[in-house]
Amino acid sequence: MNDVFADIDAHMESYLDRLKRALSQPSIAAEGRGIAEMASLLTDELRAAGFQVETVPTDGAPVLLAQMDGRRSERLLFYNHYDVQPADPLELWTSPPFEPTVRDGKLYARGASDNKGAIFARLAAVESYRRVRGDLPVGITWVIEGEEEIGSLHLHQFVAAREEALKNVLGCVWEAGGRDARERYEIALGCKGILYLELRARGAVRDLHSASAAIVVNPAWRLVWALQALKGPDGRIRIPGFYDAVRPPTPAQQAALADWDYPEEEVRALYGIDSFLDGLTGMALKERLLFGPTCNIDGFHSGYGGPGSKTVLPAEAVAKLDFRLVPDQWPERVLEALRAHLDAEGFSDVEIAWWEGEAPSAGDPAHPFVQTAVRAAERVYGHRPAVLPMMAGTGPVHLLCGQFGTPTVTAGVGYADSRAHAPDENIRLSDFADGVRYIVALLEEFVLRPPAPTPPFPLLSEP
Amino acid sequence: MNDVFADIDAHMESYLDRLKRALSQPSIAAEGRGIAEMASLLTDELRAAGFQVETVPTDGAPVLLAQMDGRRSERLLFYNHYDVQPADPLELWTSPPFEPTVRDGKLYARGASDNKGAIFARLAAVESYRRVRGDLPVGITWVIEGEEEIGSLHLHQFVAAREEALKNVLGCVWEAGGRDARERYEIALGCKGILYLELRARGAVRDLHSASAAIVVNPAWRLVWALQALKGPDGRIRIPGFYDAVRPPTPAQQAALADWDYPEEEVRALYGIDSFLDGLTGMALKERLLFGPTCNIDGFHSGYGGPGSKTVLPAEAVAKLDFRLVPDQWPERVLEALRAHLDAEGFSDVEIAWWEGEAPSAGDPAHPFVQTAVRAAERVYGHRPAVLPMMAGTGPVHLLCGQFGTPTVTAGVGYADSRAHAPDENIRLSDFADGVRYIVALLEEFVLRPPAPTPPFPLLSEP
Repeated sequence: MNDVFADIDAHMESYLDRLKRALSQPSIAAEGRGIAEMASLLTDELRAAGFQVETVPTDGAPVLLAQMDGRRSERLLFYNHYDVQPADPLELWTSPPFEPTVRDGKLYARGASDNKGAIFARLAAVESYRRVRGDLPVGITWVIEGEEEIGSLHLHQFVAAREEALKNVLGCVWEAGGRDARERYEIALGCKGILYLELRARGAVRDLHSASAAIVVNPAWRLVWALQALKGPDGRIRIPGFYDAVRPPTPAQQAALADWDYPEEEVRALYGIDSFLDGLTGMALKERLLFGPTCNIDGFHSGYGGPGSKTVLPAEAVAKLDFRLVPDQWPERVLEALRAHLDAEGFSDVEIAWWEGEAPSAGDPAHPFVQTAVRAAERVYGHRPAVLPMMAGTGPVHLLCGQFGTPTVTAGVGYADSRAHAPDENIRLSDFADGVRYIVALLEEFVLRPPAPTPPFPLLSEP
Repeated sequence: MNDVFADIDAHMESYLDRLKRALSQPSIAAEGRGIAEMASLLTDELRAAGFQVETVPTDGAPVLLAQMDGRRSERLLFYNHYDVQPADPLELWTSPPFEPTVRDGKLYARGASDNKGAIFARLAAVESYRRVRGDLPVGITWVIEGEEEIGSLHLHQFVAAREEALKNVLGCVWEAGGRDARERYEIALGCKGILYLELRARGAVRDLHSASAAIVVNPAWRLVWALQALKGPDGRIRIPGFYDAVRPPTPAQQAALADWDYPEEEVRALYGIDSFLDGLTGMALKERLLFGPTCNIDGFHSGYGGPGSKTVLPAEAVAKLDFRLVPDQWPERVLEALRAHLDAEGFSDVEIAWWEGEAPSAGDPAHPFVQTAVRAAERVYGHRPAVLPMMAGTGPVHLLCGQFGTPTVTAGVGYADSRAHAPDENIRLSDFADGVRYIVALLEEFVLRPPAPTPPFPLLSEP
């Protein structure tokens, strides 16, 4: 691959300039800022690289669907997003978030790591490969959405409209990832699902003087008690049947976990905590982090929150909860069980104001496509990458891949101090170059080992 | 008394003008606005009425101590406050809060009911009485503080400095009160105590992505579980010994409760609730309201509270609680028991960030001073007043009266729709006139029935 790598080096300055131009264009989904401009900039870039590009409208940001044929009929799926997180708090940035700046071999800008860097690494890889070798060994179907940072709100509309493009692919190269705190390259094969909802309890029609608490219901107490009915101090989620659908990790998944070198001390120091939940460490900690479903209070707000004392009987209490789900926990089923449990425990008055959900998707480390990605990483990074069967976070992996049996691997250009979602987001230029080479190596794998029919990725038992 | 009542009528316009002048002067303790100006205005008014006035400094607003001798050496204690609640939200006022306006026989202004109206009713009564009869029958010691609306924060400094002035009085005429929803005049003899505190739980040093909830402590959950350890869905407070110090109502207090016509339907309609806590009604409801201690969540705040979803593992959770206390529950003892209970239940990590407390003080409806007040009310209002042995709310009754064995009765000029602490606060001009006459009638009682040595008011068992 040295011929292609040499071409990458020769064009690196121009690749970085194009990335910087994209980083100069804000594209903040949460603020509806620069979305159309960014979609247009990216369409031009994709076309210049030789892709056929279609802009698929949704009720939110449009989804770009870029296609390129290869020598073989088989195709890879790429997934990225062109939106970024808001840049606040601006005063904590060393250089302005939308003025890309290189310092000490690092490129600083909002979106550098998450995930415009990855998009331009893939573009560069395709361009250099084709310049040196002609056609790609396999085709690429590239989905780039514009609402990832706000929960991929309308991506399902794209999927419904272009379902055929997502089926029968060799595998998907997902966004995100890079090197971990110990500089090991990391590949993740899926995401936890999520059920996010708001619980709401009501009392009197307005806040009352707290003297009335002797005889009038307090919705903050109702919510405290309802929450306690969901999870007690032992951390066990009390919704009947909640754990029944949980699949324990397979031997291959357990082996991948065992091989994963989770930086416990570094994480504890970063978070400022003495120990992890329940004193977990080692394999048990890693299994809980990646395979443990959660019930988390994201917010609880009721009554007076200012300085000092104010005697109030609040009229309302609101809690936001997220359940991180693992295969085969389906958000709709958890929601049903939650409502039934609240009713059974005497909390019919506690309302589920709204909810949203995504299904989980874990991957099989032994799958041939995953092994292909692992070999490519070994060639570029010089070591065996860590393989995470599932990420602790959530993304639309099930929606785009899991439901079609498509195996998925992440490929990113970040590192442990990339500060995604935070001020001074950055990537190292060396990681960007490695990221370009990694995509080339992955394509090259399909020349070295032509894709054989692979076993279908195990589907979840659908609800 | 008709001679004095005629003098009141003849001077009513001037009395109301002086009240309006005082209502035009904002005096908002919470904002530190107009406090010195109001203290000065009131000092002038008190001196003009013939009082000796001393301005007793504290670390907060000064306390006015006004004295006037009577024909007998015995003295009455008056208690009022010259501060008012903030006027927000301004847009809900029909006329500006500090531009007193009469509409339909009602005087609208912040402080009209709570409690500048009562102050000026007392001033008017003293002036008319002395104009017609010469000296008062008994002396008056009048305490007017400027921080009642922020919890009488520095009143204890006044008490420590002028303790002698508060001792050996016939009884105290407290601020607040008036006619209830069924137009019955109401006299209250004391207040519940309070323990107000803030509970705080901490997790990581900063908010984390909620994916970390699988392995990092969530302080909102810690606080939910700690609160549940304090009070469960049955409403029973679980702190060991909490109820041990509670004195049940005496027969005289129960008789007063039985005679009190609590407007259940009106209150339910006003609050927009179908029923009271635990389905209480009748005597049980009244007893819970006036004699039941509480544990109330005034506020609970943690994590994300904006629109929609944000996946956050909060770094901190804070709850504000108030316990309304009844004799003989002492705030310091409840605090100690609370801390010990949290520790015993495994919540040593939940911190009591700060606290403040006031002791409870209930009165004896059979006390001669209370009977004197009842007779005066019968003469002015033409019916037997309701007597509430204790209010559901809290005030410094124990600090100024209870600890010295001084029996206490409220005397106010409000009515059910006076909207204290709310926009369009108002009093009816007819209630103001009755309030002036009531103070005259009370003074006259000591001419009709010269004060006999009265049994000391039962002191609480001090901690």
